[in-house]
Amino acid sequence: MLKDFISVSQLNEDRFFQIYQLYKDFKEKYNNGDKKLSDLRGYSVLLPFFENSTRTRTSFELAGKILGADTINISGSTSSVKKGETLYDTIKTLEAMRSDFIVIRHYMSGAAHIVANKVKSRVINAGDGMHEHPSQAVLDAITILEKKGKIEGLKVVIVGDILHSRVARSDIKLLSMLGAKITLCAPQTMLPRHLEPFEVEDITTDINEGLKGKDVAIFLRIQLERQNKVFFSTLNEYSIKYGLNQERVNLLKEDAIIMHPGPVNRGVEIQSELVYGDRSVILDQVETGLFTRMAIYKYLLTA
Amino acid sequence: MLKDFISVSQLNEDRFFQIYQLYKDFKEKYNNGDKKLSDLRGYSVLLPFFENSTRTRTSFELAGKILGADTINISGSTSSVKKGETLYDTIKTLEAMRSDFIVIRHYMSGAAHIVANKVKSRVINAGDGMHEHPSQAVLDAITILEKKGKIEGLKVVIVGDILHSRVARSDIKLLSMLGAKITLCAPQTMLPRHLEPFEVEDITTDINEGLKGKDVAIFLRIQLERQNKVFFSTLNEYSIKYGLNQERVNLLKEDAIIMHPGPVNRGVEIQSELVYGDRSVILDQVETGLFTRMAIYKYLLTA
Amino acid sequence: MLKDFISVSQLNEDRFFQIYQLYKDFKEKYNNGDKKLSDLRGYSVLLPFFENSTRTRTSFELAGKILGADTINISGSTSSVKKGETLYDTIKTLEAMRSDFIVIRHYMSGAAHIVANKVKSRVINAGDGMHEHPSQAVLDAITILEKKGKIEGLKVVIVGDILHSRVARSDIKLLSMLGAKITLCAPQTMLPRHLEPFEVEDITTDINEGLKGKDVAIFLRIQLERQNKVFFSTLNEYSIKYGLNQERVNLLKEDAIIMHPGPVNRGVEIQSELVYGDRSVILDQVETGLFTRMAIYKYLLTA
Repeated sequence: MLKDFISVSQLNEDRFFQIYQLYKDFKEKYNNGDKKLSDLRGYSVLLPFFENSTRTRTSFELAGKILGADTINISGSTSSVKKGETLYDTIKTLEAMRSDFIVIRHYMSGAAHIVANKVKSRVINAGDGMHEHPSQAVLDAITILEKKGKIEGLKVVIVGDILHSRVARSDIKLLSMLGAKITLCAPQTMLPRHLEPFEVEDITTDINEGLKGKDVAIFLRIQLERQNKVFFSTLNEYSIKYGLNQERVNLLKEDAIIMHPGPVNRGVEIQSELVYGDRSVILDQVETGLFTRMAIYKYLLTA
Repeated sequence: MLKDFISVSQLNEDRFFQIYQLYKDFKEKYNNGDKKLSDLRGYSVLLPFFENSTRTRTSFELAGKILGADTINISGSTSSVKKGETLYDTIKTLEAMRSDFIVIRHYMSGAAHIVANKVKSRVINAGDGMHEHPSQAVLDAITILEKKGKIEGLKVVIVGDILHSRVARSDIKLLSMLGAKITLCAPQTMLPRHLEPFEVEDITTDINEGLKGKDVAIFLRIQLERQNKVFFSTLNEYSIKYGLNQERVNLLKEDAIIMHPGPVNRGVEIQSELVYGDRSVILDQVETGLFTRMAIYKYLLTA
Repeated sequence: MLKDFISVSQLNEDRFFQIYQLYKDFKEKYNNGDKKLSDLRGYSVLLPFFENSTRTRTSFELAGKILGADTINISGSTSSVKKGETLYDTIKTLEAMRSDFIVIRHYMSGAAHIVANKVKSRVINAGDGMHEHPSQAVLDAITILEKKGKIEGLKVVIVGDILHSRVARSDIKLLSMLGAKITLCAPQTMLPRHLEPFEVEDITTDINEGLKGKDVAIFLRIQLERQNKVFFSTLNEYSIKYGLNQERVNLLKEDAIIMHPGPVNRGVEIQSELVYGDRSVILDQVETGLFTRMAIYKYLLTA
């Protein structure tokens, strides 16, 4: 039983496939025209977001609304956080309003975990610092499952700023738990110094080696907004050394898929014309995300 | 059949009167106490607004909610646009979340058109740069129709910064299509250099000549926030030369109406005590706007 | 009969207890699982907030949603207020959209009163400058009533920046009307110069005298964000002289309760470990706030 969803470490294969089943049920209902459900009618979903976001916040908000919940946005920039309130007090306050779900994004690693332990509300981690983004990992896994028919045994490469990426951390854990063979591909400066905690098949700084023969290639966003200015001088270099172009696509398996959590820096991680190309499932990830979030709400409600 | 509503050029007389009929139906229902309808139940309305707005955003949001839609605000200042995402990618992402309607305001002329051609979602232009603001034109036309009983043959003067005004562009096209005789009145610097595309009766830089004998006077907002500082030194001069005062009201026909898309710069375009005076229908425009937006949603749904 | 709720001066004992009865009804329903009601179905609640807020805005928004209203946020930072629109015009515009309720927070004392007199919509003051915060006073009174069983005859001390506090003004009026004996405790510089309008039992600059033998201690927030830098140098001094610590708790009656409208500046008004200590009812205030706002909506609807 899960009260909260903070880390993909909370999932085992059973739990993942239970969420996947809920996902399929919701998607089928929706496609059959049941676009307004009542699974969360009478429940409140509070969304304190301390970092800017479009896709994650909108996805959780819309998923909640489709399920009939009352959703309330709380952005770091217009809230009493500006008055110096601590995260703990903000969340205790939301709980006191009888919040059923708290979907939190925070720039501090571990924020969601701290919060979850302190409140009775169900807490969903929508991204905490460089730590985890578990709903992204679930939607990534489901996208792969739907596109490739399986996860077990697939060769998956994750390219980019592994060091700073919560998506990478969550993806590596979940996909390897589900049987994928993970390769990490990044410049040395973007690889974690201590690699032991990661169950990976291979690590390489060579993009050609990284992509060769893979079923799935996940490109990570270069967090331009988090980097200092020094980094920018080498952005073009990054693109040349690690950016996806047509030649590099050809290194992948013929039926490989290309993923990115978005938003893409066009021309940096992926050449612009490939962003929504034949192999890309980037928009499928977004669509999958909507039904995945519906499934996560429902799972926490019933689990 | 219309998927999107981007420009008043998409309307002909038939289409306008179909929307007007829907407007009247919704207004009647609402006035009879049917204040929560289900025409858009199960539909999502996403509102990416890249410029600040109160009346247009609130009007579209409330209209959607009254019709039972799930509405989601996305403001330029808290979205991933801050992360450098392109407009195209933002919108493709919203579409991937199965958005039924995308109501977009953008500072770039042509933004809504570009977006509409790329997505399956119905797109409504809530203002794009200096190009168009079609729902404003429809509500303006309906306001005139309700107040004057007709549009055909009416003498309408539009006063102010025609050059930069999307409201002017949309109003001129729609009202002239509906048979109004348009006069433009502005200082030379605020008139478009190429006037051919505008079907207007008359153009004048003289406010007295502009107002004389008109049935309808539409005052445009001086976009203080878009002007550079140099302009401000002549604000008082603008007010003296083109601002509406009681003396100038007397030049209009006795039963003339005074309009403004809001927000009014009191004492600039219109002398403060005249803003909600006898002739002013400025608040009627706002009220008409609510039911007009309901009608536009419904029209795109059924057309 | 009340159209608006602007000041606790509008309440007498009867009215307060009518609101309290509605509060109890809603809380009971909610606790019995009726978490989605329809008292406000078909009503719109517009929330123009010109100051940052989490608890008050979220509380009013959620209360409205639970009652079935359509709620719309309008923040000072993304609205046309940025375009220089006057408060009066903003509110007339919201009224023209047929708003049923306008819940307004504004930095200007008297803002809500001015607004209420100009519109047909029901107006609720969610805090106006240094003037009043009446829903806070009602929830404070109800919290005391629930925790102490009565208000009449209780000894209540209000500690802190009385001079700038709208919460203090509303609390003093309401609690003294309901029979509490009020003591004010603050440094001389934070006391109003003219104390006649306040019906208080005692005024003191000595915290020990202020707390001694009291049933209820209400600590006010030091408005760091409103103070100039000069004040900050004495923040530690304020904490030493007026901050609540365990030793000072012991001066209160044994069964006394400790209140704060939040957000607390931990270590300034209240020592950190006491914020949610045994005597603290700070989170009860937040919970009470939710049902109090539901009751206020309902009261204005039926009164």
